[in-house]
Amino acid sequence: MGGDDAPSVTVHGALQARGDGLEVILVGQPEILSAALAEAGAPDGLRIVAASDVIGMDEDPAFALRSKRDASVRVAARLVATGEADALVSAGSTGATLAAAHLVLGRVPGVRRPVIGALIPSRRGGRVVLVDAGGRAHAQPDALVGYARMGLAYAGVLGVGAPRVGLLNVGTEPGKGNALAKAAYELLHLGVPGFSGNVEPGGVLAGDVDVVVADGFTGNVFLKALEAASGRYGDSAAVVLGVTDEVLVTHGAATAEQVARALRMAAEVTAAGLSGKVAAQLQGTVDGRDVLNEEAL
Amino acid sequence: MGGDDAPSVTVHGALQARGDGLEVILVGQPEILSAALAEAGAPDGLRIVAASDVIGMDEDPAFALRSKRDASVRVAARLVATGEADALVSAGSTGATLAAAHLVLGRVPGVRRPVIGALIPSRRGGRVVLVDAGGRAHAQPDALVGYARMGLAYAGVLGVGAPRVGLLNVGTEPGKGNALAKAAYELLHLGVPGFSGNVEPGGVLAGDVDVVVADGFTGNVFLKALEAASGRYGDSAAVVLGVTDEVLVTHGAATAEQVARALRMAAEVTAAGLSGKVAAQLQGTVDGRDVLNEEAL
Repeated sequence: MGGDDAPSVTVHGALQARGDGLEVILVGQPEILSAALAEAGAPDGLRIVAASDVIGMDEDPAFALRSKRDASVRVAARLVATGEADALVSAGSTGATLAAAHLVLGRVPGVRRPVIGALIPSRRGGRVVLVDAGGRAHAQPDALVGYARMGLAYAGVLGVGAPRVGLLNVGTEPGKGNALAKAAYELLHLGVPGFSGNVEPGGVLAGDVDVVVADGFTGNVFLKALEAASGRYGDSAAVVLGVTDEVLVTHGAATAEQVARALRMAAEVTAAGLSGKVAAQLQGTVDGRDVLNEEAL
Repeated sequence: MGGDDAPSVTVHGALQARGDGLEVILVGQPEILSAALAEAGAPDGLRIVAASDVIGMDEDPAFALRSKRDASVRVAARLVATGEADALVSAGSTGATLAAAHLVLGRVPGVRRPVIGALIPSRRGGRVVLVDAGGRAHAQPDALVGYARMGLAYAGVLGVGAPRVGLLNVGTEPGKGNALAKAAYELLHLGVPGFSGNVEPGGVLAGDVDVVVADGFTGNVFLKALEAASGRYGDSAAVVLGVTDEVLVTHGAATAEQVARALRMAAEVTAAGLSGKVAAQLQGTVDGRDVLNEEAL
């Protein structure tokens, strides 16, 4: 039910993904979804699971989620929680999707709140993982260590060997930036294998790092600036990191093709066991170097 | 003496600007500047004022400025302070230029520390004033009211009537953003004429506002992301706002043409009396609506 042109775009995207062999369940108001399927020429094309409520883009996500027990994103999360579905993909409110993932699926130990991992295409042809791309506006320095670890897990799933981690900053020299960046630098330096120091926006696009960490406010401004300047929106879906299952968000303005791509990506990260690898990164030692204090996150 | 290819690029830029009728003084090590002028085919083309020291890009600006009394940027600032020059243009360390402006020229009443005003080309063909584009990594919410006022003064100098002011944020709805953005929103709403609410990066590029304010960390990440994504660097020089005279900084990688443009821009903002208009915006009432508490800035 989410997205600017819902449900037509999401239904078309789901039908495309079905053509690739994925089993897609539509969650929402059955009469509306049935009509969209019929219009798309596939009246019985996909299974529908009923959910009577929808959370709008202008609603307070946490409040709406708690008051609308039958919201589509919440019902979809329950399908994942019960094992009926492997992953949740939403083109609706990112905040509501994060809240549903947090509330219904639960967090990975060591994570206070889930965040967003987005992919930024680099000029080298690779993709840089950005954590947090907009999940939490506030972050304490130690949280960025957790972001780095989650980003390392995601980069591993993408097939990057020995990922390099950078801290998004206004200069590359140590000591640059605001109080958060300065404190996070020290913690990343001590606690994260592959930490290569500060990275500027240009360095991210040049592919100088494989993972870049930032608080969610800065990360989101950064991502939106890149999107606005390049004119490309939501080429890749973003993953919710720090919850016990696979949850993806795609842009509200996503096309059917982009929705289909988000669904294929959901299948890929599910097959690769992303959420389990995130949990492993956060719980144990990495290269025998460091055991992270759970309370610190 | 500043800039990646100094002094060749700055000398060529200065000679171009001289061709437009500007009187340009070169400040730095005379033998090096004379050689650069000779190489450019204009051995006696420009007046040179001697300064024996140079502040490098990797030095701590405040410390270097205090320890190097004869640094070129400091001598150049003195020429402005004594009235021998109308404006200072630097392609060197922005931090050192800010510090020299602060120390030698002094602040406008109501300003704790000078900040940077940059111009972002909008898709409408106009230019959006960004304050702070990277002068101060830290800002309290009330400082952003001052940034907005300085931006209004600059927009006025650029000929914008009734400028609209936006707060750079991750969403347009009130209540979005981190603690700084939320608090600044309320203060801007109460205290700044023309405040039109939050603006996302895409809204800035669309020209939805004429002035956009942000703390210097976010503003600098935003500006650098735009530059990195568009591949265009330092098309316009940036102005130092909040000091008693005209000071401009241009990119260290600026071409001679861009240095010449920065010098022309310096002449324009001097003729328009930018620093005086900034002072007026910060001291008095605007539209009879508000008297700003100097202490609050």
